[in-house]
Amino acid sequence: MNKALAKYERRVTQTGSLLCVGLDSDIKKLPARFLQKKYPQFSFNKWIISQTHQYVSAYKPNTAFYESRGQRGWVELAMTMAYLREKHPQIFTICDAKRGDIGSTNEAYAQAIFDELGFDAVTLNPYVGREALAAFVDRKDKISIFLGKTSNPGAGEFQDLKVGQKKLWQVVARRIAKKWNQHDNCMLVVGATYPRELAAVRKIVGEMTLLVPGIGAQGGDLAKVLKNGLNTQGKGLIINSSRGVIFARDPNQITRQLRSRCVRMMPCDKR
Amino acid sequence: MNKALAKYERRVTQTGSLLCVGLDSDIKKLPARFLQKKYPQFSFNKWIISQTHQYVSAYKPNTAFYESRGQRGWVELAMTMAYLREKHPQIFTICDAKRGDIGSTNEAYAQAIFDELGFDAVTLNPYVGREALAAFVDRKDKISIFLGKTSNPGAGEFQDLKVGQKKLWQVVARRIAKKWNQHDNCMLVVGATYPRELAAVRKIVGEMTLLVPGIGAQGGDLAKVLKNGLNTQGKGLIINSSRGVIFARDPNQITRQLRSRCVRMMPCDKR
Repeated sequence: MNKALAKYERRVTQTGSLLCVGLDSDIKKLPARFLQKKYPQFSFNKWIISQTHQYVSAYKPNTAFYESRGQRGWVELAMTMAYLREKHPQIFTICDAKRGDIGSTNEAYAQAIFDELGFDAVTLNPYVGREALAAFVDRKDKISIFLGKTSNPGAGEFQDLKVGQKKLWQVVARRIAKKWNQHDNCMLVVGATYPRELAAVRKIVGEMTLLVPGIGAQGGDLAKVLKNGLNTQGKGLIINSSRGVIFARDPNQITRQLRSRCVRMMPCDKR
Repeated sequence: MNKALAKYERRVTQTGSLLCVGLDSDIKKLPARFLQKKYPQFSFNKWIISQTHQYVSAYKPNTAFYESRGQRGWVELAMTMAYLREKHPQIFTICDAKRGDIGSTNEAYAQAIFDELGFDAVTLNPYVGREALAAFVDRKDKISIFLGKTSNPGAGEFQDLKVGQKKLWQVVARRIAKKWNQHDNCMLVVGATYPRELAAVRKIVGEMTLLVPGIGAQGGDLAKVLKNGLNTQGKGLIINSSRGVIFARDPNQITRQLRSRCVRMMPCDKR
């Protein structure tokens, strides 16, 4: 099995948690006590990690919230990753970057995300095709997570277009599962806000792991996600909450509750 | 007319050039004399700009080649933009970032690219739909450039899928031109390597400006691009070369030649 996928699965087995916390540490929303720090986003992230790590199997910073601060943000993203690799090397890390350029350019992104920052996985946009994304997909040691059906209300504008009898997101899901995933290093994004589509994707992709954002602030339903998304191993999901956890009054409590709801709703023999 | 589009058009009128130079200043490919500098990418970019500015109407750094150096790269990208804004405020600037996240996240990217770095335009992936990309498309003072038919050999894997009687790239082009472009602030990417598709996109989008990468290293043909891509004003194109110019033995000569071929091939009454 792919090394990074094995890392995620091991963590899920150890903790019983399918939860991912999105470190979308928007500087405009940080509690005031962090803004006085030299490294506000890094300090906030360290605090969130201290409050949540025992209940989670993955962290997923979205690069936008670091890039919006220019080089200061990049420094703090790199510090966050160095901290995670040192203190919590068993927790899976996803760079939520939704990249997708062509050819030689993706080599530079892959280097930035996998080698410079040291992430296990990256989110990618499949629109340019497999050939252009080889720099990611050929990395057998890492995970490429492609947008399938995204969680936003207007996701269907192109993703629901009919291609023959199928919708575009179905064609994308099938192609990635059947053609791109030869190294067992691909995953798909399916929004928690589209539980029926999640069930359909599960049928298309077999055991492949799905990244499911959109519970919490975006309103996705955890019970439906588990019911429709688990694979036959009772795993195969990375369920993400970002704002709903990190800007909660008590991130520790919220994460603990999410994890225990998660375990309670999993089939007994799969816990 | 949109302020940023007016800036581009004014520059084209002044210089007669539709050329854009891609500042894809890959640190691994820089001439040795720049590697000894404190800011190698910025020093290289300043040199390229000094050699080419009189013949170009736009510059387009691709963020990947800066991100791959972490915060050092971001510093040098910001320095490059500050330099361009000060010394050549009349030249149009495109952040080739191919971003496309959802909702609140795009606000952070728009801030990073338009406000922190000060670009006139950004390249975006349309897969998530207009609703998710509002943070870009609602910026009436800036330009959103969407991937239509990309220049890579495998672009067709999804982009050529048939949606009814049309291909996906045709549907994307039509929708962006007719629905998303209400503020006259949208453009489309069509690779120079697909001249027939370029002609088809021109018919679909009317006068809208197209960003055409892929001449030079990727093998696109300038004459075909002009023949198939110009709008009725004899403009409406941003023709990009990156590696073919910046890593040429003499970037000044190459750019001058490209520009004069460009002018020679434009219809006489439109020069």
